[in-house]
Amino acid sequence: MSETRFDVLGIGSAIVDIISRCEEDLLASFDLVKGCMALTSADKAKQIYDRMGRAVEISGGSAANTMAGIASLGGAPSFIGKVGKDKLGDIFRHEIEAIGVDFHGGRKAEDLPTATCLILVTDDGQRTMNTHLGASTTLGPDDIDEARVAAARVIYIEGYQWDTPKAKEAIRKASRAAKGAGRQVALSLSDPFVVDRHREDLLTLIREDVDILFGNEEEIFRLYHAGDLATAIEHVRGAKVLACMTRGAQGTVVFDGTTTTAVEAFPVDKVVDTTGAGDLFAAGFLYGYTHGRDLLGCAKMGSMAAAEVISHMGARPELSLRELLLKHGL
Amino acid sequence: MSETRFDVLGIGSAIVDIISRCEEDLLASFDLVKGCMALTSADKAKQIYDRMGRAVEISGGSAANTMAGIASLGGAPSFIGKVGKDKLGDIFRHEIEAIGVDFHGGRKAEDLPTATCLILVTDDGQRTMNTHLGASTTLGPDDIDEARVAAARVIYIEGYQWDTPKAKEAIRKASRAAKGAGRQVALSLSDPFVVDRHREDLLTLIREDVDILFGNEEEIFRLYHAGDLATAIEHVRGAKVLACMTRGAQGTVVFDGTTTTAVEAFPVDKVVDTTGAGDLFAAGFLYGYTHGRDLLGCAKMGSMAAAEVISHMGARPELSLRELLLKHGL
Repeated sequence: MSETRFDVLGIGSAIVDIISRCEEDLLASFDLVKGCMALTSADKAKQIYDRMGRAVEISGGSAANTMAGIASLGGAPSFIGKVGKDKLGDIFRHEIEAIGVDFHGGRKAEDLPTATCLILVTDDGQRTMNTHLGASTTLGPDDIDEARVAAARVIYIEGYQWDTPKAKEAIRKASRAAKGAGRQVALSLSDPFVVDRHREDLLTLIREDVDILFGNEEEIFRLYHAGDLATAIEHVRGAKVLACMTRGAQGTVVFDGTTTTAVEAFPVDKVVDTTGAGDLFAAGFLYGYTHGRDLLGCAKMGSMAAAEVISHMGARPELSLRELLLKHGL
Repeated sequence: MSETRFDVLGIGSAIVDIISRCEEDLLASFDLVKGCMALTSADKAKQIYDRMGRAVEISGGSAANTMAGIASLGGAPSFIGKVGKDKLGDIFRHEIEAIGVDFHGGRKAEDLPTATCLILVTDDGQRTMNTHLGASTTLGPDDIDEARVAAARVIYIEGYQWDTPKAKEAIRKASRAAKGAGRQVALSLSDPFVVDRHREDLLTLIREDVDILFGNEEEIFRLYHAGDLATAIEHVRGAKVLACMTRGAQGTVVFDGTTTTAVEAFPVDKVVDTTGAGDLFAAGFLYGYTHGRDLLGCAKMGSMAAAEVISHMGARPELSLRELLLKHGL
């Protein structure tokens, strides 16, 4: 097997987040489901934005956040995603490169703006997301450089990609290239509604190519139409994947064919904004995984990275996760 | 005299700041003068941006920051400035309206991007600014609605405007309209190099229209070619304006024709980023001035507002200045 340049290569939407605190009734007035992601037209996005208070803009995107986390931990990540030919696109690129991620944007979409996500954070720290996909919908097979894919030990795909029509082919190409090169494929389920919308496609990819599956309890339950944890675990075991089921404050359960490993949530003083919690769990886990740690070690790193990101606004780490690792003796 | 709707109407560049910490040697490698503002071509801006680390984007613009401060204090400000037809323009408008400033953008510039300012903050908290003016250069006389100007007790003009060719006429129109309606005109000198570049124009405006002058020690010294404080004060007194000379950690001196009022700098735990210090001094001072406070009271409010803004990154207040006023019994 040839040498690898990257620990993990992420494929996902390149999004700049616009984050604001809000009252619960704002969610209700736009029929938004708390904790979930909704695709939003330009018109509806404008209506929501007009009702939002002061906001901050921070680069986001699920798989991009995971790659930023791996870079902050000291790993070598790469990211493939499409930005528009605009200032927010420049900002996205700058941010991800500045933290140390190899970024491959391919040809820029000429006429579509860089994707934005209006994130409403309620007082309980929960985030509700409204995404206008813009230029990120142009990701297609041409953007997948097979040599680049083969140069990563693991490729990481976000479930959100099934919402962009051309991305399916791109993912197929990437996962085939990865498997052909003897690499591993990780998948994040992203969102309960994403699972509902694309259940069959996701199950097919899991059956054929996925080695590592990330999802929260609700996403994994919906994927397998499971009503309880034991049934869900049985299905995942049947799929022969290594699965990480995040459970918010209840911590995380990791199970493979034979073993079950549970870790508690890492303590945080105050949950400020849960945006990026799942993304950063995956970052910590995959960093450990590609650096020879056992499952318990990987899960602890994931919990630590998730704890950092929920203690402030925005889905990218503010502190050096590398220094936090050392501080906590991980 | 007809009734006023606004305490202060600001006229200035509508800019989104891109702020990053940096080492001293980055300033040297681009020949940047610490603490000053340089106009930057798109090419040079790109070179600087490529060398910057992780950044945050926060709306800025000198007069716009002052109006945001007045809104945060509970006052009624208005702002005239030009953004481009792009996402950063939407963000600028959203931020200034969300804090409570009446925003008048006029017709959007079709082909120019919203102005950005790359701000490099060194470890001593000093900021060095690189502005790409873009759409903000399109401010012209057509954007000045004389009824709006007449509806403000004070209009506030940033010296930076002399760097944009058409703005001179716009300012002339606004200051004439203000004087004609019996209102007052305030001017901020903005930057030592701005004073050098446009000294004669600034002196003419001061002589003919200005009632209140804001500047730091260096700017006022350069304006009058004064070598010491006594000479500078003598010149300002000759110009028959109320002048506020900010002196960083040494506090502020306010003088009119007869009296001199000195206030100490408001205590801060740590100077994180001095961006916006002068802008927020002006906000506090003008809020007090338009609410019947004496000069000492006005200067204390200015010092308090400046202290808040230098204790965090970005040139807009993070805390409610209204609540801080009450807390400090001002």
